[in-house]
Amino acid sequence: MRAVVLLSGGLDSYTAAAIARTQRFTLYALTIDYGQRHAREVEAARAVARALGIERHLELDVDLRAIGGSSLTSDAAVPRHRDLKGTDVPSTYVPARNTIFLSLALGWAEVLGARDIVIGVNALDYSGYPDCRPEFIAAFERLADLATRAGVEGARFRVHAPLLALGKADIIRRGLELGLDYGLTHSCYDPLPGGRPCGTCDSCILRANGFREAGVADPVLLG
Amino acid sequence: MRAVVLLSGGLDSYTAAAIARTQRFTLYALTIDYGQRHAREVEAARAVARALGIERHLELDVDLRAIGGSSLTSDAAVPRHRDLKGTDVPSTYVPARNTIFLSLALGWAEVLGARDIVIGVNALDYSGYPDCRPEFIAAFERLADLATRAGVEGARFRVHAPLLALGKADIIRRGLELGLDYGLTHSCYDPLPGGRPCGTCDSCILRANGFREAGVADPVLLG
Repeated sequence: MRAVVLLSGGLDSYTAAAIARTQRFTLYALTIDYGQRHAREVEAARAVARALGIERHLELDVDLRAIGGSSLTSDAAVPRHRDLKGTDVPSTYVPARNTIFLSLALGWAEVLGARDIVIGVNALDYSGYPDCRPEFIAAFERLADLATRAGVEGARFRVHAPLLALGKADIIRRGLELGLDYGLTHSCYDPLPGGRPCGTCDSCILRANGFREAGVADPVLLG
Repeated sequence: MRAVVLLSGGLDSYTAAAIARTQRFTLYALTIDYGQRHAREVEAARAVARALGIERHLELDVDLRAIGGSSLTSDAAVPRHRDLKGTDVPSTYVPARNTIFLSLALGWAEVLGARDIVIGVNALDYSGYPDCRPEFIAAFERLADLATRAGVEGARFRVHAPLLALGKADIIRRGLELGLDYGLTHSCYDPLPGGRPCGTCDSCILRANGFREAGVADPVLLG
């Protein structure tokens, strides 16, 4: 069975894809280059797709900088050194991003005859992103059945979010069990020249906390 | 109050936008160039936006040819000379198109502080498109509230589809009452060299039937 997996080049989507692979899905990876600061992510997505033995990897450009409204798609500063216990939606929230990404994945899934979409969102670690919550995922599944020819003909789409209830350390432990090479991934929102992670943005902090709690070194920071 | 209107360059979205203008919305028009055969539509969208006095007109490229699955985004032939009484989904259905378009409109609406999105879908004339049905529109509204920071903060998004229950002749009559110049619009799925409508695709047939029933000449076919 085919599944479309949204692959960003980060640690989460790599792990979500690997979990889907254990469920015997044939994976079709979709990477959206949306004009984010961290275009380095797209290179990481290619490396991850190769490592996973993806059936096909489709890259699409959708310039969300034209829409703006996020520190990831504008020249506004990304937050640094934050305490990630809050619940506010951070400035790195990109308006409707996961809705846009899932819609594109849905279109491709329908063309491929796939009924399954995989996304690496998680709601347990601090994120504050509205479009990472289980109720959002459930609402998208209902929409997908109404939106498509396949749905009219009786198909039921499923959005798999296998990391939804996992903390970052649990995600990393699960990925290491599956033999993943996290040295291929990229998480930083605003990398230094040369592509190395900044170490101070929310995404770097979450990642560092996860590796620390899992008791392993982050291969990206080695060597 | 601001509203984002999806403007294709066709007759329906022009009329829907004009109806929204009578409701005192300040209009922000979004046109998606998705690699459709009828790129002539995008030029029409610019002309229509000017005629409507749109506050801002944003054009976004999203290459749905990479996804395929439609005679509008591939080299497959578009259907010709069809009897439009059937209920099958036609080959001109573009997988998840309106979901993708509404998602992009939602992102922009959130950035603009708008809660209203206008789309020119209609379900009464034959269309067979699943993503033109009222239940799809309602499901998208529910999703929008869950997908966004604005929704988390209590906003309720509305998707206005003022043509949903109108036939093509009624749409044309309403537009003419509002003083619209349908000579600016383009409906054909597969225009002839030079951009003139083919006259035989579903969209041309629906348009011709609408003008005939409304008892007026289509200005695009004059001169």
